[in-house]
Amino acid sequence: MIKILVAGFKGKMGATATKMVLNHEGFELVGVLDPFEEKNNLKELAEYPAIDVPIFKTKEDVLSVQPDVWIDFTIPAVAYENTHFAIEHKISPVVGTTGLTEEQLAELTDLSKTLKVGGLIAPNFAVGAVLMMQFAQKAAEYFPDVEIIELHHDNKLDAPSGTAIKTAEMMSEVRAKKNQGHPEEKELIEGARGADFEGMKIHSVRLPGMIAHQQVQFGGVGEGLTIRHDSYDRSSFMTGVALGCEKVVHLNKLVYGLENLL
Amino acid sequence: MIKILVAGFKGKMGATATKMVLNHEGFELVGVLDPFEEKNNLKELAEYPAIDVPIFKTKEDVLSVQPDVWIDFTIPAVAYENTHFAIEHKISPVVGTTGLTEEQLAELTDLSKTLKVGGLIAPNFAVGAVLMMQFAQKAAEYFPDVEIIELHHDNKLDAPSGTAIKTAEMMSEVRAKKNQGHPEEKELIEGARGADFEGMKIHSVRLPGMIAHQQVQFGGVGEGLTIRHDSYDRSSFMTGVALGCEKVVHLNKLVYGLENLL
Amino acid sequence: MIKILVAGFKGKMGATATKMVLNHEGFELVGVLDPFEEKNNLKELAEYPAIDVPIFKTKEDVLSVQPDVWIDFTIPAVAYENTHFAIEHKISPVVGTTGLTEEQLAELTDLSKTLKVGGLIAPNFAVGAVLMMQFAQKAAEYFPDVEIIELHHDNKLDAPSGTAIKTAEMMSEVRAKKNQGHPEEKELIEGARGADFEGMKIHSVRLPGMIAHQQVQFGGVGEGLTIRHDSYDRSSFMTGVALGCEKVVHLNKLVYGLENLL
Amino acid sequence: MIKILVAGFKGKMGATATKMVLNHEGFELVGVLDPFEEKNNLKELAEYPAIDVPIFKTKEDVLSVQPDVWIDFTIPAVAYENTHFAIEHKISPVVGTTGLTEEQLAELTDLSKTLKVGGLIAPNFAVGAVLMMQFAQKAAEYFPDVEIIELHHDNKLDAPSGTAIKTAEMMSEVRAKKNQGHPEEKELIEGARGADFEGMKIHSVRLPGMIAHQQVQFGGVGEGLTIRHDSYDRSSFMTGVALGCEKVVHLNKLVYGLENLL
Repeated sequence: MIKILVAGFKGKMGATATKMVLNHEGFELVGVLDPFEEKNNLKELAEYPAIDVPIFKTKEDVLSVQPDVWIDFTIPAVAYENTHFAIEHKISPVVGTTGLTEEQLAELTDLSKTLKVGGLIAPNFAVGAVLMMQFAQKAAEYFPDVEIIELHHDNKLDAPSGTAIKTAEMMSEVRAKKNQGHPEEKELIEGARGADFEGMKIHSVRLPGMIAHQQVQFGGVGEGLTIRHDSYDRSSFMTGVALGCEKVVHLNKLVYGLENLL
Repeated sequence: MIKILVAGFKGKMGATATKMVLNHEGFELVGVLDPFEEKNNLKELAEYPAIDVPIFKTKEDVLSVQPDVWIDFTIPAVAYENTHFAIEHKISPVVGTTGLTEEQLAELTDLSKTLKVGGLIAPNFAVGAVLMMQFAQKAAEYFPDVEIIELHHDNKLDAPSGTAIKTAEMMSEVRAKKNQGHPEEKELIEGARGADFEGMKIHSVRLPGMIAHQQVQFGGVGEGLTIRHDSYDRSSFMTGVALGCEKVVHLNKLVYGLENLL
Repeated sequence: MIKILVAGFKGKMGATATKMVLNHEGFELVGVLDPFEEKNNLKELAEYPAIDVPIFKTKEDVLSVQPDVWIDFTIPAVAYENTHFAIEHKISPVVGTTGLTEEQLAELTDLSKTLKVGGLIAPNFAVGAVLMMQFAQKAAEYFPDVEIIELHHDNKLDAPSGTAIKTAEMMSEVRAKKNQGHPEEKELIEGARGADFEGMKIHSVRLPGMIAHQQVQFGGVGEGLTIRHDSYDRSSFMTGVALGCEKVVHLNKLVYGLENLL
Repeated sequence: MIKILVAGFKGKMGATATKMVLNHEGFELVGVLDPFEEKNNLKELAEYPAIDVPIFKTKEDVLSVQPDVWIDFTIPAVAYENTHFAIEHKISPVVGTTGLTEEQLAELTDLSKTLKVGGLIAPNFAVGAVLMMQFAQKAAEYFPDVEIIELHHDNKLDAPSGTAIKTAEMMSEVRAKKNQGHPEEKELIEGARGADFEGMKIHSVRLPGMIAHQQVQFGGVGEGLTIRHDSYDRSSFMTGVALGCEKVVHLNKLVYGLENLL
């Protein structure tokens, strides 16, 4: 059993992580941390009636239960201090808080190496999305002909999505340069051929009902290869958080990015 | 058994139609027509060794075998004369030759009504593609949120495809006017949101290996509806030609467009 | 503006319907009905802070606000009485409560005809699912070669799904009898070719993350046609409820089944 | 420029390989080999009018043009001798002929190591299919919930396909044991849940129009990951043959299986 503490347990991500820990056979929730949680005001915990674990108000209090892993979904300033504190006390951090500076990351990594404490800081915990990007990069070595179709709900403001751009960047590192389509192709209506990223085309679909989906479509002589990720809700990140908790206890330094654990 | 003649049997479409007739249980091939086919020069027929039917050189000669249906994949000038001749002689035409003028179509239709002869002239015999367009039009009445993704081989010059534009036109006849996407959406890379057709977006993918595919994607609150057609080769048109042959013998006038028989 | 009352507004479906009415430009919520709602106990309404409409405790009270449409998501016994009452008072019912008997349906239909009041009773309000089934039936006339793949979350107990079976039934009404696959095909592992429904095969996929999806896959010579419905959450039913409200005010009798309004 | 010889150039695979070499910028066709090809009887080469390369009748004659790579699509007995001869003369073999015995493979591999000659023998040259299987295996480490849907033309006799079974075998090497679906799930129609392979389900679709397609569908909490390969025609193998020719010249032993080059 891996003993786990959750900091930031009242936020959306933290609450989802807390549920995941409670439901996971290999994990034991040994406490949650929130400096502003009043003893007499537990109504916000009402939705977790089964939680019978200490609610700590300071990070020092946490040490009494000796957690193995410190899950952190707080805010950047707090996350930095929490992660530093965890490493110092040989608790492996699994941090989903975004916004740490490069200096902070470097310092935390150095500290983790010195003390030989494993840990993970990741901006994205969706295992499926990370695998999709890794597979796309691998396939792009052999199939330079590729276009991305990403589909999101129609409240999304940016097109293409960040994931689509990151996927294209990763593919362009290994892909033979090439412009998709016939050299003399013509757009009868402007934009038909999509956004151009170093010759690869990206198409952004926006429809109600959709959540977050991406399809990377490769074409070769006489064949096609498709890699698709569908994200239906926030809980999809939890597979990655759980994986992180399992892996960090066997590491001896801090790792940045879930892709480095897969 | 429906007795069938094929005019233009040496062209790609005509040859495929001839094979289809030969392989269809309900059809009997009673002859083929080609004015330039020399008696002593049958080598071009070598690939149909089983054909033991008369090769007619003039349309008048055809009457000797009394066909029920006259399949025509010739050239426009010939097709007009052939169709006129067929209707006059109470043979139901099934014409895939494109390029007849509106006047010719009107005249042939009038003649067919007068003589009560059924027939079909169709620019597109792909039943699946026609159904896709009909279904898309029907769905657009209830789901105004729709985008089209069409995928073709990378030798295709035009984007969007003619089928995509026709589908969009058919949907716009019944669809509540609406611009897909968020009013304030931004393209980080130009073209990401595709071609705009009255607020519907069309995305054209071009990859080697692909043949001709179209996906019409509808979104509603909490749901999605997708209609997709995949065309793998020219033979896909033959389902429609066969259907035409079966239906025209029960009609009493000439019909334009396969969609009017479905 | 169509004036609407919602009966059973505290249940899951009723609450979703209430939200839909509140958010719909063409609708005005003129009241909700619940016999057990205590004046002093409105906490269950807390999630609709904006509702400033009467909460009626008896159906007679409803008449004071003269609704055009009566949405009903109650229980069968109540739904029958409510619908009868609504028709008598020339309010068009839109009823999603399932479990009315055939006798009750017949009686309500007769009453509606006599009084020339439009209405709708439907076991399923998912417009996308109904269209999928209608399109599948239409396509099966021309493409007898068809298999169904349905995909659901892995808590579902029955396979195939009710929707898959209903789709197969609708297709079998028009489809030429045919056994999918080669006459001499062999299953190396039992079950590979799926469930057999009059020669059509049905394949049931059960995976976590999935919600409710169905793909009807047609094959013809050289082509394929696919019709797919994805249901992401309960709110997908609301497109159909809204459509029902818009249509019933123009009808002069009660209709059973959303498909008869499409 | 890599200098290439093709043995078995008149068979279907060999002819396709010959075309590929002729069209590839980095390759030079320096000869073809066929012991039964008569000098005066070149009509079978008519379809390659542009070939102006020697047609060798014995393998010894081949040495005059000093090829770098020896592509072999002959028959097993000949392939063994050809490959042995090629390695002896420091020509790198790329062999698609199936049916060599394990002893022959072992002997050829030993010889290649001794002489430090690179080479490739592969039963399957479809890069896309090999990548699909590798990706599926990798994903199965993180997502034990997986089902396979494979779709083929309706002349296929066996279900599931060999590729589906091989994919399942590869996944089972790394996947946590698990039975897909609810423990109490029931098949209303037998076979609905597909073929069982160590708890993973395989569904085989057979429809006219289809060629060879496989979709590996993973499910996780709130997400899905799909890997799909579509094979449209035999030419799809050529990407792998070309890749083999490029890679073998940098190897110093014989490799079995394309997957070991990716």
